[in-house]
Amino acid sequence: MNIPKSNFPRIIIIGGGFAGISLAKELSKKEVQVLLLDKNNYHTFQPLLYQVSTGGLEPDSIAYPIRKVLKDYPNFFFRLANVEEVVPEKNELITNIGAINYDYLVMATGSETNFFGNKEIEKNGMVMKSIPESLNLRSLILENFEQALLTDDLHMRDALMNFVIVGGGPTGVELAGALAEIKKGILPKDYPDLDTRRVQINLVQSGDRILKEMSEKASQKAEDFLEELGVQVWKNTRVKSYDGKLATTQTKLSFEAATLVWAAGVKGAAIKGLDAEKLLIRGNRIKVNEFSQVIGHENIFAVGDVAGMELPDYPCGHPMMAQPAMQQGKNLGKNLTYLLENKPLKPFVYKDKGSMATIGRNKAVVDLDAYKFQGIFAWFVWMFVHLFFLIGFRNRMVVFINWVYNYVRFDREARLIIRPYKRDYTMFKE
Amino acid sequence: MNIPKSNFPRIIIIGGGFAGISLAKELSKKEVQVLLLDKNNYHTFQPLLYQVSTGGLEPDSIAYPIRKVLKDYPNFFFRLANVEEVVPEKNELITNIGAINYDYLVMATGSETNFFGNKEIEKNGMVMKSIPESLNLRSLILENFEQALLTDDLHMRDALMNFVIVGGGPTGVELAGALAEIKKGILPKDYPDLDTRRVQINLVQSGDRILKEMSEKASQKAEDFLEELGVQVWKNTRVKSYDGKLATTQTKLSFEAATLVWAAGVKGAAIKGLDAEKLLIRGNRIKVNEFSQVIGHENIFAVGDVAGMELPDYPCGHPMMAQPAMQQGKNLGKNLTYLLENKPLKPFVYKDKGSMATIGRNKAVVDLDAYKFQGIFAWFVWMFVHLFFLIGFRNRMVVFINWVYNYVRFDREARLIIRPYKRDYTMFKE
Repeated sequence: MNIPKSNFPRIIIIGGGFAGISLAKELSKKEVQVLLLDKNNYHTFQPLLYQVSTGGLEPDSIAYPIRKVLKDYPNFFFRLANVEEVVPEKNELITNIGAINYDYLVMATGSETNFFGNKEIEKNGMVMKSIPESLNLRSLILENFEQALLTDDLHMRDALMNFVIVGGGPTGVELAGALAEIKKGILPKDYPDLDTRRVQINLVQSGDRILKEMSEKASQKAEDFLEELGVQVWKNTRVKSYDGKLATTQTKLSFEAATLVWAAGVKGAAIKGLDAEKLLIRGNRIKVNEFSQVIGHENIFAVGDVAGMELPDYPCGHPMMAQPAMQQGKNLGKNLTYLLENKPLKPFVYKDKGSMATIGRNKAVVDLDAYKFQGIFAWFVWMFVHLFFLIGFRNRMVVFINWVYNYVRFDREARLIIRPYKRDYTMFKE
Repeated sequence: MNIPKSNFPRIIIIGGGFAGISLAKELSKKEVQVLLLDKNNYHTFQPLLYQVSTGGLEPDSIAYPIRKVLKDYPNFFFRLANVEEVVPEKNELITNIGAINYDYLVMATGSETNFFGNKEIEKNGMVMKSIPESLNLRSLILENFEQALLTDDLHMRDALMNFVIVGGGPTGVELAGALAEIKKGILPKDYPDLDTRRVQINLVQSGDRILKEMSEKASQKAEDFLEELGVQVWKNTRVKSYDGKLATTQTKLSFEAATLVWAAGVKGAAIKGLDAEKLLIRGNRIKVNEFSQVIGHENIFAVGDVAGMELPDYPCGHPMMAQPAMQQGKNLGKNLTYLLENKPLKPFVYKDKGSMATIGRNKAVVDLDAYKFQGIFAWFVWMFVHLFFLIGFRNRMVVFINWVYNYVRFDREARLIIRPYKRDYTMFKE
């Protein structure tokens, strides 16, 4: 890889997510050479992916060109690359575009869907961790309805209009709520020749409450909101198998559905090459100390979802969310500077600013430290916070316009099958 | 296909482009049953596809759900389908979702890229007639620059940064201008480690002037604008072959380029099954009379690009553009009503409202009947007209926001490789 030689130490950051970008920004004016690698040329604002899937937002408005983030930083380089392996003994990274040496390495690779070893669900289920995946889900949802119009078999039609969402975290809850609003506001107009009252939205949660990272109050209210919208919430239920048609659970409950969305787990996207067995904690996260330093590797760091910083308050590491990732990125930026200046490092302390989820129009739940609230005010707070954290003025404007439009018109105009998902429906015809 | 029986006559419209949508709108309140078929579930605003390719607009803002257009019309149905054949003797249409009968059939299938039989260019060239194609081109342009960073071979790097656009019509001119602006405003910031001054944009035109459908003045000014922007315009030049690396012409001129965009011709997208030899005129358009009626078929009509209405003023049919398509759709809507009421039909008379093309920031050319002008005022007129004809308030707002942003910031933020095009670059490494 032809990165110019420099007198500054070279820091390689793998991943342009929340952690990687916030670290890069912190390093922008320092005497370092930074190489940022990512498999995409854009940063993805993951919290809004479900709105891309449900036609409320266009993909381009929640993506931001990484090169644009870096353009004013001297000594910053970006390369579109897949990282294959770290060779710590040689301070070398092996990628699909060649090997490259680092002085310091930061893994900010984020997380990936965790199917907990279930290959069948991995093959037949839909996920929503990236923009292409979210667009595939958008296409599939719309294709199901187009397909439902073509059959006289009511059994098949019901299966095509049955949505199973596995996982009662924010992603599952937000997707279920959005689908319920589409069922109510859009489907009857778009498909007057279908009985769209028969559309079913099932949210399946293994634990005894949804949004289990939030307060009891938030969980309860979110469930009430979902039920108001017509979502069926199945608690204490685990999906065991899904062959593309039938989803079974550990109870007698099963679903015949053309769409199963797996939002039931993520795991750290750790890279090959570190002394893995010893270093990985639960959730496939890399064990780091309170300075984000990978245990046993002085010049290798991990931040964000992939970092497993086990602290007394967070025995399994911090929540795999944007906030800890951004804060860790920022903290590491400072620490790398201290390290270069031979100053003592500052341990990372997570400031939990609270959490929130939106269920639908005027329906959100917000947990702040001092104050927990639900409903329309929570919904405005949710929107404001998400707009605030979106990168880029244009993206904010476009998202804002879409939200105002969708709110006023009870609409979602991006219901477009731009790249058909082309799932095989033959099994429903048997 | 399970469309409910009705006492009204059934009109099938194939294609939700400018002609099909304008016809559907005209029929909205009539006593007819309308089935609209399209291979996409959205209408595409083709005049702005080049802005999707060049990162200025998101695809969703120039697409509009067809179901939403039809939602307030009683007795209107939409099906996502590919039409395979017309069987006029049975009044039947054969599609991938089954056969269906019509009382009246309207072909509004538009046009497709015309490679004039050159299979090699068809295989290796890029086109820009649909949203997925435009997104492929967007990805390829960006991937070329990412790839250029990875090679030390200056020869290869030049080829990766060499763009050949074949065809000096509005599409070619507008794409060339947009690329030139990217070269000037965005590439130096995004790729500080590439000598982007070496980027070449070649516009190849077979005739002796570009924009040959417009006035001499417009052609000349457009050429001046392009040259000001650094585009090389090659007139009287025909591209003969392109193997993915080398484009040859009928002269000694050749280009080594990773990207060749073929915008040199379109032809009617006629459907199999009519008495083709007799009915097709030059450009693969279906011969129709002045009522858009296909010659020899009383209940079959064609409107828009696919219709070849040979009139004294338009011996080869009307220009394959949005304006004639919309006007023909509207005229046919009225005529179908007259036909059902046994009233005399009204011949189609094209009102040429003029034509225009934009080359770049403050640079456009406009030909109106009475008045021809170029420059900044033309550019504002161009933008206003395009916003006006975009379908949907949300689309207009989003496009407007993007344009204001792009203008003020000299930027195009949708430079995102969302679905990599993944072209094979190995031939450049030999």
